[in-house]
Amino acid sequence: MSTMPLTIEQLNAATPAEFVALLDGTYEHSPWIAERAAALRPFTSLAGLKHALVTVVRDAGLEPQLALIRAHPELAGKAMVSKTLTAESTNEQGKAGLTDCTPEEFARLQQLNADYNAKFGFPFILAVRGPRGLGLGRHEIIATFARRLGNPVDFEREECLRNIHRIAEIRLNDKFGVSPDLGNRVWDWAERLAQHSDPGYAERGELTVTYLTDAHRACAQRLSHWMKADCGFDEVEIDAVGNVVGVYHGSDRAAPRLLTGSHYDTVRNGGKYDGRLGILVPMAVVAELHRAGRRLPFGIEVVGFAEEEGQRYKATFLGSGALVGQFDPAWLDQVDADGVTMRAAMQHAGLCIDDIPALARDPAKYLGFVEVHIEQGPVLAELDLPLGVVTSINGSVRFVGEISGMASHAGTTPMGRRRDAALAVAELALFVERRAASVPHVVGTVGILEVPNGSINVVPGRCRFSLDIRATTDAARDACLHDVRTELAAICQRRGVSVTLDETMRASAAPSDPAWQTRWERAVAATGLPVHRLPSGAGHDAMKLHEVMPQAMLFVRGLNAGISHNPLESTTNDDTELAVRAFADLLEQLNREHSA
Amino acid sequence: MSTMPLTIEQLNAATPAEFVALLDGTYEHSPWIAERAAALRPFTSLAGLKHALVTVVRDAGLEPQLALIRAHPELAGKAMVSKTLTAESTNEQGKAGLTDCTPEEFARLQQLNADYNAKFGFPFILAVRGPRGLGLGRHEIIATFARRLGNPVDFEREECLRNIHRIAEIRLNDKFGVSPDLGNRVWDWAERLAQHSDPGYAERGELTVTYLTDAHRACAQRLSHWMKADCGFDEVEIDAVGNVVGVYHGSDRAAPRLLTGSHYDTVRNGGKYDGRLGILVPMAVVAELHRAGRRLPFGIEVVGFAEEEGQRYKATFLGSGALVGQFDPAWLDQVDADGVTMRAAMQHAGLCIDDIPALARDPAKYLGFVEVHIEQGPVLAELDLPLGVVTSINGSVRFVGEISGMASHAGTTPMGRRRDAALAVAELALFVERRAASVPHVVGTVGILEVPNGSINVVPGRCRFSLDIRATTDAARDACLHDVRTELAAICQRRGVSVTLDETMRASAAPSDPAWQTRWERAVAATGLPVHRLPSGAGHDAMKLHEVMPQAMLFVRGLNAGISHNPLESTTNDDTELAVRAFADLLEQLNREHSA
Repeated sequence: MSTMPLTIEQLNAATPAEFVALLDGTYEHSPWIAERAAALRPFTSLAGLKHALVTVVRDAGLEPQLALIRAHPELAGKAMVSKTLTAESTNEQGKAGLTDCTPEEFARLQQLNADYNAKFGFPFILAVRGPRGLGLGRHEIIATFARRLGNPVDFEREECLRNIHRIAEIRLNDKFGVSPDLGNRVWDWAERLAQHSDPGYAERGELTVTYLTDAHRACAQRLSHWMKADCGFDEVEIDAVGNVVGVYHGSDRAAPRLLTGSHYDTVRNGGKYDGRLGILVPMAVVAELHRAGRRLPFGIEVVGFAEEEGQRYKATFLGSGALVGQFDPAWLDQVDADGVTMRAAMQHAGLCIDDIPALARDPAKYLGFVEVHIEQGPVLAELDLPLGVVTSINGSVRFVGEISGMASHAGTTPMGRRRDAALAVAELALFVERRAASVPHVVGTVGILEVPNGSINVVPGRCRFSLDIRATTDAARDACLHDVRTELAAICQRRGVSVTLDETMRASAAPSDPAWQTRWERAVAATGLPVHRLPSGAGHDAMKLHEVMPQAMLFVRGLNAGISHNPLESTTNDDTELAVRAFADLLEQLNREHSA
Repeated sequence: MSTMPLTIEQLNAATPAEFVALLDGTYEHSPWIAERAAALRPFTSLAGLKHALVTVVRDAGLEPQLALIRAHPELAGKAMVSKTLTAESTNEQGKAGLTDCTPEEFARLQQLNADYNAKFGFPFILAVRGPRGLGLGRHEIIATFARRLGNPVDFEREECLRNIHRIAEIRLNDKFGVSPDLGNRVWDWAERLAQHSDPGYAERGELTVTYLTDAHRACAQRLSHWMKADCGFDEVEIDAVGNVVGVYHGSDRAAPRLLTGSHYDTVRNGGKYDGRLGILVPMAVVAELHRAGRRLPFGIEVVGFAEEEGQRYKATFLGSGALVGQFDPAWLDQVDADGVTMRAAMQHAGLCIDDIPALARDPAKYLGFVEVHIEQGPVLAELDLPLGVVTSINGSVRFVGEISGMASHAGTTPMGRRRDAALAVAELALFVERRAASVPHVVGTVGILEVPNGSINVVPGRCRFSLDIRATTDAARDACLHDVRTELAAICQRRGVSVTLDETMRASAAPSDPAWQTRWERAVAATGLPVHRLPSGAGHDAMKLHEVMPQAMLFVRGLNAGISHNPLESTTNDDTELAVRAFADLLEQLNREHSA
């Protein structure tokens, strides 16, 4: 193998045999992957090459995929265990620190390995160099092993393939001599920011940053410091509600600015990227502009919103709401779990409550709003795509309900004489599933389902449930809800039970502005990746800005099936790098538009 | 109206017009009921007449039934409220003490009445003279009113009709100058026995009598006293496990005895009749024999079993189990919630543990075992039948289980990408319902159904559930279970979720002995009532005796839809009287068989 870094040009120009040889060692004992990928040339970027390789494996079907997984060595011999966990090189193992296992850890790994093989019939694959490429710790490897042992077999098979592709990605980076430096920068900021956590969570190593706690204020301080000192923003301030606002001026200070950002508060025991990625990615972009001494014909205003999750106070979207003039003064009298009013918390933080109305932005002074966000869903992970373009933030409606039937003896009540509240909810839940699945981009969920004090020998007399319906348009959401209500009434009529259903939340859909969505699509294409469009099932700060200016969002793939609001929320440095590059490309498009 | 008591003979001989006139006032402004009942003559008993009247109303259909309900005055005018609640006479109201309402109670009744009429569109009917005929208290009337307001409309309509029939029953008793004295005796014993309740429950007016508590020992003492002093049993003792055993000798002391009885312990916050009715009914029968100075050619052994419910210790059927040699010495080391071993509890109660093995009965010395029990189900109430003959005590099997899918974001996880654990359980529960309903006398119940820590916006990753299947034969139970297991596997396969299912209980079916079942059928027919056969969905002491001797059970209708293991468990003095008469008839049948 050449010690000179490989280039895309070299690969595009190579014969098929040379191509396979150049990529040797990327995938374990599976030259067929490179052979088939050769036919997909030319590639415009390393990201494009990686995606082509992934696509070959995806299209190969089940048996070759299993063969690829099984081409990796098992954790079989004792001698192996302390040295290698997967087919990654000893160097890779070394980075993961697995050579220093204690005898207890060694035994635990052996047991996990035996259990895993017994359950799945293929070896456990983990990219031990991890999402940052610096190596996972032994505790993390063992915890991941144990957790994945609980996965369904088909899911775990795909998880192994995803790890194989991550291993290949790191090897390709090495071959190409590239390092995702901008992604690393964002990733490291996120890691550093996650060291601040509220009392009661920090002690357990959990991340919780709620509105105006000490940890929250430390995050604001740190963000503003980075903006100023590391990124070269011209103006940085913490505003009257605690938003961190950084402005990087354009060549014309009076020209309308691009507004971007996301939130830095978290849910309880949440993830490190939800919200924060949308602050840190544009910070990295501005830092690059500043490093190059470049000014664009428009300013860039990056906002770290202080509050989006509604955890400490019921004031969801407080931060972005303030920018659209929707701060509700009644919120000031809300008290948190400790009886502290929002007003007192704001005064304690030194915020000037009287200045809040002035935070409302004049839309005429902005080009629009864009937001980068971790997907918080499985779509990009399942498609093996690092980035996706949001078409719409779904409209949603939520209910809590309860069906009342009649509790009766499970042994003595004939089937035809029952008024089983749980079966009525069971029918409802299955209808919600069928109805939602019948239309693209509609989702319906019964997340709470509980027979209060249920007993094994009592026909359920009551059953509590929740209902959550979301769709890309309000009309699709409302049509689904109408059908669900109709079916619910029919179920209750047929079963002789009654129902209460209380609406707890309703939000309108926020479709992306076509021009801004197109800019994101071009930005993704510029990275060499296929463009995938998808709706956002979760709400975001962009929903608020949507009310006063055009908006569009970019999604970044999440690891662990896109899990969010959870410590397992994660993203790689490579995906983050692509997000930074896409954001930079969007700026270049705007630059060209303004120059044209 | 004649002041002389009416007789069945008189009614059978009357012209249809006379018949209607003689029954005038039985049903409110509805002479059509008596008109149609006239065609059903002759009647062999007052019970038969009552049943004929009920049958006429049942067969008349919905509109005449609603007209009958609406023939009763509403709680409309203020002046009415303090005096009348239903169409019962002022005398009946007086017995219910409704004339002494406080202004607050008055206002509450008015509100309930308004709400009730708004919901149901017919007046609230309550037999205010109650199950003992002595009148309900104001608090009880108001509580019943409030509770029934929560009923489904069709159920409540039938509840009104049942109350109308109870009002008619009491009026007919008055017309006929009869009083259910034996039923009253049993009813009053049950009421007196219910005054003993365990600490923590007694204070709240709840009935809980668990093995060998002070209340339990007081019940044993009281039962043995009544057996000896009030009923004339020849031998009464509290045996080595706390069973109360009374023997009324036959003319031949060496002849095989009839064994009967049931348990006197209760579940927590249970009812007054579950178990106890089966001790008290034969006590009343023996008392009558003793009063008449009669000896039958066989002895009668009535056992109040000390333990059937398995509440304080996990030793269900301890009392009846001891009679079939199934006392498990390992139970002695079990501890209750306060850390008291069963051994210590027995020693504290003065029981001779060493004598337990000697409690095992020699089947050769018994004719068989019969047990009277409140139905604990809705069947007899829905059929308006005071008594039913048990065909089999159902075989049962119970499981607890959990389905594991993958928790995910309700907004961001497309319908096709979910592994919703709750939907898998929903499918299972609906299959259990369909499968059980497809075969007579099979019941299947998912009584526990819970998404642990379910959230409105999270696709359920886990769902706990229970499964309870019962059938008149073990083969029918096992066939149902087989199909349920097959379907469960298919659901899990299709949905990509996994399941654990742990069997917690399995009991064999105990079909009634044909000869003894026939005796009960004849005994019911002798009361003038139609014979209805039904399985027992609940387990009973007879299941234990079944292992060593022939057995058969008689069920007595329960009020309030047959609810049991609940303070609302109830029965009327009239139904209890019929149970006593049926038991006495069974003895007469045996007497004839022995004399023949």
